[in-house]
Amino acid sequence: MTEIQQAAATEAGNSQAPSRRSLIGWGGAGLALGAAAAGGAVAMTSAGNDVDPTAAEAGAAVAFHGANQAGIATPVQDRLHFAAFDVQTDDRAEFVQMLKDWTAAARRMTGGKAVGEGAYGGLAEAPPDDTGEALGLKPSRLTLTIGFGPSLFEKFGLKDQRPEALVDLPQFPGENLDRNRTGGDLCIQACADDPQVAVHAIRNLARIGFGKVNIRWSQLGFGKTSSTTPDAQTPRNLMGFKDGTRNIAGTETDRLKKFVWVGEKDGPDWMAGGSYLVARRIRMHIETWDRTSLQEQEDVFGRDKGEGAPVGKAKEHDKPFLKAMKPTAHVRLAHPDSNDGITILRRGYSFTDGTDGLGRLDAGLFFLAYQRDVRKGFIPLQRRLSATDALNEYIQHVGSAVFAVPPGVRDKDDWWGSTLFSKEA
Amino acid sequence: MTEIQQAAATEAGNSQAPSRRSLIGWGGAGLALGAAAAGGAVAMTSAGNDVDPTAAEAGAAVAFHGANQAGIATPVQDRLHFAAFDVQTDDRAEFVQMLKDWTAAARRMTGGKAVGEGAYGGLAEAPPDDTGEALGLKPSRLTLTIGFGPSLFEKFGLKDQRPEALVDLPQFPGENLDRNRTGGDLCIQACADDPQVAVHAIRNLARIGFGKVNIRWSQLGFGKTSSTTPDAQTPRNLMGFKDGTRNIAGTETDRLKKFVWVGEKDGPDWMAGGSYLVARRIRMHIETWDRTSLQEQEDVFGRDKGEGAPVGKAKEHDKPFLKAMKPTAHVRLAHPDSNDGITILRRGYSFTDGTDGLGRLDAGLFFLAYQRDVRKGFIPLQRRLSATDALNEYIQHVGSAVFAVPPGVRDKDDWWGSTLFSKEA
Repeated sequence: MTEIQQAAATEAGNSQAPSRRSLIGWGGAGLALGAAAAGGAVAMTSAGNDVDPTAAEAGAAVAFHGANQAGIATPVQDRLHFAAFDVQTDDRAEFVQMLKDWTAAARRMTGGKAVGEGAYGGLAEAPPDDTGEALGLKPSRLTLTIGFGPSLFEKFGLKDQRPEALVDLPQFPGENLDRNRTGGDLCIQACADDPQVAVHAIRNLARIGFGKVNIRWSQLGFGKTSSTTPDAQTPRNLMGFKDGTRNIAGTETDRLKKFVWVGEKDGPDWMAGGSYLVARRIRMHIETWDRTSLQEQEDVFGRDKGEGAPVGKAKEHDKPFLKAMKPTAHVRLAHPDSNDGITILRRGYSFTDGTDGLGRLDAGLFFLAYQRDVRKGFIPLQRRLSATDALNEYIQHVGSAVFAVPPGVRDKDDWWGSTLFSKEA
Repeated sequence: MTEIQQAAATEAGNSQAPSRRSLIGWGGAGLALGAAAAGGAVAMTSAGNDVDPTAAEAGAAVAFHGANQAGIATPVQDRLHFAAFDVQTDDRAEFVQMLKDWTAAARRMTGGKAVGEGAYGGLAEAPPDDTGEALGLKPSRLTLTIGFGPSLFEKFGLKDQRPEALVDLPQFPGENLDRNRTGGDLCIQACADDPQVAVHAIRNLARIGFGKVNIRWSQLGFGKTSSTTPDAQTPRNLMGFKDGTRNIAGTETDRLKKFVWVGEKDGPDWMAGGSYLVARRIRMHIETWDRTSLQEQEDVFGRDKGEGAPVGKAKEHDKPFLKAMKPTAHVRLAHPDSNDGITILRRGYSFTDGTDGLGRLDAGLFFLAYQRDVRKGFIPLQRRLSATDALNEYIQHVGSAVFAVPPGVRDKDDWWGSTLFSKEA
C-alpha cells in the first residue's frame, strides 16, 4: 500500500465497515455511531492494486480516495444504478460548488454514512439532508464514479479542455438509438451489492443537484449475487452464455496501464489517471433467441453453452482456437487476436425493464467499457462487430453515451473534476 | 412436519439445495449433478408453519408442494419479478396443458433445476428447453405463485366458478391507473434472492406459454438484501421509513387462518387453502417528498424516521398510541384498531424503473397484499386510506390488479389450478 493510499484510507474513515447509522439525533431514539459495529476490510482503489481479497465481502466499504476512481478496476459489485445528467445552470461557480457537494456526499455514502454531518437535532422544520432509505444498511461496496460527456465541454468555457480521445461515437450499422437513452453532459455510475444503496446514492446526488443538473436517463442493472452465486463463477448474460471470461482483472497492473488508464503523456494533463467510458444499452431479442437451436446459439458465440468452453475445447478458460469457430462467431470477432490486440475493460450489467408494448421482455445488456482511448478501443472493435458479428441478428444497440472519466479524488480536500475545473476558463 | 409435507419435500427433491447444474449433456464438458454440492434446508410451505429457520439462507430451496402455495406465508425473499398474462387461446384443453407444463417447470426451477429433463444430447438442432441464464446458480429461495384474475372467469366456461370474494376493485379517489399496468387474466409472482433467478423463471414460463398466453405487464422489485442487510432489520421504503413492522409473520398460524387463507366453508370449494392477492403499483413523488421537512414526514407516517418508533414511543416495536398521532397519520389510519381489526399480509417490494420524461425518478412501492376476502381486506382499508391518509399528497396508485390465488400443488401429480379446472365446464 502506498503512503497516499494509506492516508486516503484513513482520512476516508473506510478502514472499518460501519453500518449507515451515523445520522445522529433523528427521532427520539438516537442512533449510535456504528463504526465499531462491523469489522471489514478496505478495497484500495486500483492504482497500486492493493485490492484486499476480503473486499469481496458484500457488506464492506471500498475506499473512495485514490489515484484512480473506484468502480473501474475495483471488484465488480452485484447491482448498478447508472444516471446521465444534463446541466441546467450556466453559472460555472455554482456548478463547481455542486461537484464539491457531490464529492462530499459520495465520500460519506461510499463509507456507509448518510449525507450530511448528521446534526438534525432541533431542525425538524427542515428537510433531512439524507433521504434515509439506506439508514442501517451496510456500505455494500458502494462505488460512485463520475464522467463528463462531450456536450459538457460546450459549456463553462471548457472547449479547449476537451480530450481528443473523447470523440463523438460514429453511427454503427444496425443501431437504433433512442435519444431518451442517449448522451448526457455527465454521468454517475453507482455500483453496490445492495440495489437500495445504489438507488439511494443516485437519488441523493440528484437531489443535491436540483436546479443545477437534471437526470436525462437512468438504468438499473444486475449481475451476479454475492449471497447466491457460487464464487469464481463467470456470470451468464441473458442469452444464457458465460460472458466476460477474458476480461481485465483489477490486479493486472500492466494491462490496466496499457489499456485502461490515461497516461501522463497521453494528454490532456487533467485526464492523467482517468479513463474513457462507453455505455451502450443493448436490447436482446430474447424471444427470437429462445426459439433458436442450441447449435445455432453455440455457433453464434463460438462457445458451448453449458461449460462456456471455446469451440473444440473442454473448459471455459482454455485458450480459444479461433479458426475452429465460424468466421462470424462473436468470441472470434471480439478477441484481441482478431483486433490487433485491442482490449477493453468491460463492466456491464444485465437489465430487465419490464415489457415492451408487444408482450416481449425489454431486456438485455447494459454494456459499460473502460479504455485508455475510445479511438483505439470501442470504436474499431464495434466497427468490426457491427459489420459481421452473427450476434447482430439477436441484439440491437438502442442507447449510447461516452464520457471522460477524470482521475480519482486524492484526499479529503480534493473533489470530482478538480483537475479540469481548477484551470482558468 | 406433517406426513404430506414430508412426502412433498422428498418428492420435490428439495431436501438439498442443488446448484442449477442438472442439465446434462450440454456442450462438450458435461455438467455434474450438483445435488450433493451444497447442503441446505427446506422451508416448508406454511400449512403447518414448519418454516425452517435456516431457510433464511439465501441460496436454499423452498418446497414447492404443500397445502398452500409458497410465496405467501413463506419468508420474504430479496427480489421480485411479477408478470400479468392475458390468455390468447380459446382452447380449454390447450390452456390446461399449459398449466400442467408450467407446474412441471415451476417444480424444477424452484428446486434449482433447469426446465426440461436435461436430455439434450444429440438434439443440438432443437432450441434448449431452458434458456440457460440460471445454470450454475443456486435455488435462491425461488417461489412461484400463480393467481387467476376476474377476466379469466369470462373464458373457458368458468363463469360459475368465479369466487364472490374476487370482486372487481372499485375506483378509489386519487388513483390514476395506467391500463398498461392494470389487470390480467392470470399472474405469476416470482420471488428469489437472486434477480437473475426470478427473471429466468418468468421468462421460461412466458416461453412455455407462447401462443397460449402473452405477458400483459411485468414489474421488477427489490427489498432487503440477504448479504448486506443486517438481520432482523425492518426494511425501509423509498420514503426512508421502516415499513411492515406489524405484518403477519409466516409462523402466526392463527392470524394466517383468520386473515389470509380461504377456509373450507368460505367457498367456492376449489379455493380452500388459497388466498386473494391485490397488486397496486404505487408511484411515490420522490422529489416532492425529499423537499418536505422531517417533522412533516414524521407526522405523515406517525413514526419517527430514524428508529421507526410510533409517535411518543422509543422503539419501533413499541405498541403505538394512535391518539398521539395526527388523525391523518398513515400508521393510525392503517392500523387494525382503526379498521375493525382488518389485517392483510403485505409482501410488497420497492421499485425504481428509471426516469419519467420529466427527469423525475419513476420509483415507489409495488404493493402486494394477500387476504382471505378482498371485500373484508384491501377494499375497506383502501377506501379509508384513499379518503384521508396524509400520505396521499406524496403517492399515487398507478397500476392495479386482483387475483384469486388457488391452493398449493399437493404432490408431483398435482398441477396449478387443478381444483378449478378438474371441474366440468
